[in-house]
Amino acid sequence: MKSLKDAIEQKGLIISDEVLKVDSFLNHQIDCPLVMEMADEFYEHFKDKKITKIVTIESSGVAPSFATACRFGVPMVFIKKAQPSTMQDPVSCQVFSFTKNKYYPICMERQYLSEEDNVLFIDDFLANGEAFKAAENLIKECGANISGVGIVIEKAFQKGHKYIVDAGYDFCALASIASIKDKKITWAK
Amino acid sequence: MKSLKDAIEQKGLIISDEVLKVDSFLNHQIDCPLVMEMADEFYEHFKDKKITKIVTIESSGVAPSFATACRFGVPMVFIKKAQPSTMQDPVSCQVFSFTKNKYYPICMERQYLSEEDNVLFIDDFLANGEAFKAAENLIKECGANISGVGIVIEKAFQKGHKYIVDAGYDFCALASIASIKDKKITWAK
Repeated sequence: MKSLKDAIEQKGLIISDEVLKVDSFLNHQIDCPLVMEMADEFYEHFKDKKITKIVTIESSGVAPSFATACRFGVPMVFIKKAQPSTMQDPVSCQVFSFTKNKYYPICMERQYLSEEDNVLFIDDFLANGEAFKAAENLIKECGANISGVGIVIEKAFQKGHKYIVDAGYDFCALASIASIKDKKITWAK
Repeated sequence: MKSLKDAIEQKGLIISDEVLKVDSFLNHQIDCPLVMEMADEFYEHFKDKKITKIVTIESSGVAPSFATACRFGVPMVFIKKAQPSTMQDPVSCQVFSFTKNKYYPICMERQYLSEEDNVLFIDDFLANGEAFKAAENLIKECGANISGVGIVIEKAFQKGHKYIVDAGYDFCALASIASIKDKKITWAK
């Protein structure tokens, strides 16, 4: 997606060979037309998959997931990082964060996904795939089918890409980074 | 907003005289057309305010804020509950949570708001107004002007409503609850 790659090159901040900061348009301040265009791209890729729900993990995935859910005309569900005391029948698991070098919990209400659901999982970033693996656990525990994985920006040189592709999921990354070296991004495609 | 009140009455879960759960369409699973309609209502109310940014606090405010920002054609910023290590010039403060009976921090990058900005603050719920007061601090610390406060569901019998109205803000709640008694909601308007 050219406009996204342009935004990354013009407004992204390369912190290290592994860390790219896109706070100015994606995960703190949000460029709404750009996110709507992401939703169009995801729709184009997954439109034949009979998607019934969009699922993400709070918080940075919420805006692109909401836009995509609007485009598909289906509800979205965001998996939570803190379990509200009012949750009735939660499914939950632990996610390992490489950034923070510790586990954190995620959870959702079981009732919002069922065996009838074809889920499109959307997230802002894919790195080592730990968040995806945890979401995959919850979605499968609810009996739902994962029909696609849509990622806004993937660091294809980390482990997540291979995990998702090897697992056979229909996968779409809108911007795929092959490497970051000396403050320069090389695109994978 | 009639469709919102209908959704609350038909799908909301009254946990106690103070707690209403709307997880099935607003803050866990999201009914996208309903949220788009909320954005239309906020636009109608605040359209003459020369709004330049929509601001919310993650996570449940993100979807209605994003939809509203799309409607106004301006960026949105979501205030964060955890400070990323990559934040450059954060403004931060503490929020008191009555539900959890403790303080938690919120923060944002100073650069995303300036004296030029007319902010519309949007959130899913208004109860005691503690989250709003903290956001108000951050927004003012950046020098920006708060031109409006838009709330999806307010519990008008708690302290937040009076605080915002007394402070003279242009205020719009899409559903205003006067009281909850014996599992029944009385609307304020």
